[in-house]
Amino acid sequence: MRRVAALLLHHPVLDRQAKVVTTAVTNLDLHDIARSARTYGLVAFYVAHPVAAQRELCERVRAHWTTGSGAQRIPDRRLALETLHVVDSLDAAIAAFARDAEVELWVTSASAQSPCLGYADARQRIAGRGADVLIVFGTGWGLAAEVHARAAAQLEPIRSPAADAYNHLSVRAAAAITFDRLMAPPAGP
Amino acid sequence: MRRVAALLLHHPVLDRQAKVVTTAVTNLDLHDIARSARTYGLVAFYVAHPVAAQRELCERVRAHWTTGSGAQRIPDRRLALETLHVVDSLDAAIAAFARDAEVELWVTSASAQSPCLGYADARQRIAGRGADVLIVFGTGWGLAAEVHARAAAQLEPIRSPAADAYNHLSVRAAAAITFDRLMAPPAGP
Repeated sequence: MRRVAALLLHHPVLDRQAKVVTTAVTNLDLHDIARSARTYGLVAFYVAHPVAAQRELCERVRAHWTTGSGAQRIPDRRLALETLHVVDSLDAAIAAFARDAEVELWVTSASAQSPCLGYADARQRIAGRGADVLIVFGTGWGLAAEVHARAAAQLEPIRSPAADAYNHLSVRAAAAITFDRLMAPPAGP
Repeated sequence: MRRVAALLLHHPVLDRQAKVVTTAVTNLDLHDIARSARTYGLVAFYVAHPVAAQRELCERVRAHWTTGSGAQRIPDRRLALETLHVVDSLDAAIAAFARDAEVELWVTSASAQSPCLGYADARQRIAGRGADVLIVFGTGWGLAAEVHARAAAQLEPIRSPAADAYNHLSVRAAAAITFDRLMAPPAGP
């Protein structure tokens, strides 16, 4: 089984006009994605932000819940937030995750930008041997093209059964669904 | 195909000591669960709170995004928040959803409290004929026993593959995963 981690990028991501921007940190992204990552057995959840003050904010949230008063009050949250690691860039996340091993980037998007990796295939790849897998999620309106260009694979977009194919999930919901599809134990009898 | 809606209850739910309490509204619950519900074709997302001031807060959020400046700025959000309906209780949600039809309550929990309905079976039930289905999520530490007692079924808990079986998902993540398991289109070839 390959090691799997997740990365939430705040730069380079797109805004509504598809311009490359840096987004602000959302507190509940840290909690929700850490809790989902821990539940599904991911080995780490990286949050990347190029602005030092935003990284400090993330570190303060982490400290409150892992060593501060939050850790006493809600010990379950400590286990989740301990998976959180704050870095300044995609490359720093790769370096922190990989140590000396190889890393494959699997990017996510609400729209298919190239032939996509389906979830059944992705589960098989994870169960086999190979490089560590870093699943990359974008904030704002999604990952910039330069991130897609570095990816070994794009996971299939999460599709809607609605007549108008509306799919505007929060990144928190998309991450939860992605981990469930990739990592959930097989259904019982 | 049966009509499916979701309900987020703020009372009666449990606190950490398993005491029945009323929880406060979390703004991102409204956004995230509305976006997930709309993406997966649910016909409505009810939020129940017994306190009028908390219901007014929910209505203000809804109005901002459906008729206020938020609706102009991010039209996709309008389609999601239009699924949100604010009520004062479980019974009011049932009455609003059912009109004159029958409603089955399907409750959710992080732990199995009785024989549970698996997701494959649940998908088949939804695809068939029968009463409308209202999927009930609890805030805080989960739904009170009196809600479970009224349910036609409890959906299987979302299980963790982690060695310690940690499963402390946010209700936003749990709702997204539940809708995906029940309503996602079948995987392509």
